[in-house]
Amino acid sequence: MNQTAAGRRFLKAEAWEEWQASGHASDQSKGLPAPPAQRPVPAGAVVVALPAADTLTPAELPLVEAIRQRRSHRRYTDAALTLAELSFLLWATQGVREARDSARVFRTVPSAGCRHALETYLVVSRVEGLAPGLYRYQPLEHQLCRLGEDANLAGRTAQACHGQRFVANAAVTFVWTAVPYRMEWRYTLVSPKLIALDAGHVCQNLYLACAAIGAGTCAVAAYSQREIDALLGVDGEEEFTVYLAPVGKVV
Amino acid sequence: MNQTAAGRRFLKAEAWEEWQASGHASDQSKGLPAPPAQRPVPAGAVVVALPAADTLTPAELPLVEAIRQRRSHRRYTDAALTLAELSFLLWATQGVREARDSARVFRTVPSAGCRHALETYLVVSRVEGLAPGLYRYQPLEHQLCRLGEDANLAGRTAQACHGQRFVANAAVTFVWTAVPYRMEWRYTLVSPKLIALDAGHVCQNLYLACAAIGAGTCAVAAYSQREIDALLGVDGEEEFTVYLAPVGKVV
Repeated sequence: MNQTAAGRRFLKAEAWEEWQASGHASDQSKGLPAPPAQRPVPAGAVVVALPAADTLTPAELPLVEAIRQRRSHRRYTDAALTLAELSFLLWATQGVREARDSARVFRTVPSAGCRHALETYLVVSRVEGLAPGLYRYQPLEHQLCRLGEDANLAGRTAQACHGQRFVANAAVTFVWTAVPYRMEWRYTLVSPKLIALDAGHVCQNLYLACAAIGAGTCAVAAYSQREIDALLGVDGEEEFTVYLAPVGKVV
Repeated sequence: MNQTAAGRRFLKAEAWEEWQASGHASDQSKGLPAPPAQRPVPAGAVVVALPAADTLTPAELPLVEAIRQRRSHRRYTDAALTLAELSFLLWATQGVREARDSARVFRTVPSAGCRHALETYLVVSRVEGLAPGLYRYQPLEHQLCRLGEDANLAGRTAQACHGQRFVANAAVTFVWTAVPYRMEWRYTLVSPKLIALDAGHVCQNLYLACAAIGAGTCAVAAYSQREIDALLGVDGEEEFTVYLAPVGKVV
């Protein structure tokens, strides 16, 4: 099978039949416990509280206006986001609506089998109250943990995105990793496409949520896997970057 | 490489480096013309005009409410959608904002390289003014073409989704195919992940747009590739189904 055909197969659903025919039982079906819904806060890391999600009151932008205004923005002002605005973007993209048990954490976005295999890292440059550097969102507590202070992280992130300079100018860049076992636990070999679909759902909410706070974004799928994973401190196998979205004020 | 690792590679960005190292030139870089932005209306097919996109005035649901209310809905009332409501859902998911030339058709949703490799088919059961059957959306004209009348298509679509019964009860099911060459023309072997990301963006707008018209949806990625492609009349190689979303009224 040539490379094009092999690539197209990733998009197809034949893997479901292959999975069934293989008789391969998922870990979920074997009764193995669900993997954790989120990565834990590293020991000793600074935790940053976020304004509660249900107090978020961005401009009452109608949905139809958010959709109408949707553009990809690569030019940003020097303005910072407030912590409340960042909190809104995090809630819109990965906020927890209801945590029924460790295997069923319902969020603002849908996910195949409610597996939610994504983690949200933030490369912060201009967010009020946050020292520039690397953070991760903890959805269950709606808080951030700081993974490192670094005023130059945005520049290095841009370098790791094949030198796309606009990434360096963002107020904050959302970087989504996948923890693939969260999806594979239930779906085994059909998991990769499901994770990619989920990432699109998440990023679309970011585009629309940006409009509500006078910000804009432009999704980035072209990056150096090894460089970005190293910046985040993820191992590149059990967790690896899948999508990015620099965000900044545009008004 | 085992199957899990091979699957995970589709989510990674190493293909960008492989593409560069291969020296393989994309058809775009070779100056080959961009493929058409949409599939043409079949000769003799009935064309159905849709209410103009800029007259669409659904309930002025705030974006924050649409996000807050987002659920996956598998139970629908018997009510039909109006043609204006369907028009809104189509505009929200694949509506054309500006067609600069055949290679740059900007839409309500973003797409890698503005390639927009997806087509929207509709399995219609209960939409005012539309005979039940198969339709396709023509984004440039904001109209539908009828591909066939069939009162039983929804039931057969459910069967083709591994027997998920709720699909048969939808008022209309969105079925997205990919025309992969539209993405490959520019991105060659990194295309599959980009198409999957794009499909997630599109479906997320559908979830939110449904809330504005008192409808709901639940994305479906588990289906029989061969059966669905046969229902749509697509060849399964140069065009094939990638995602589905049954829609119905929930209030």
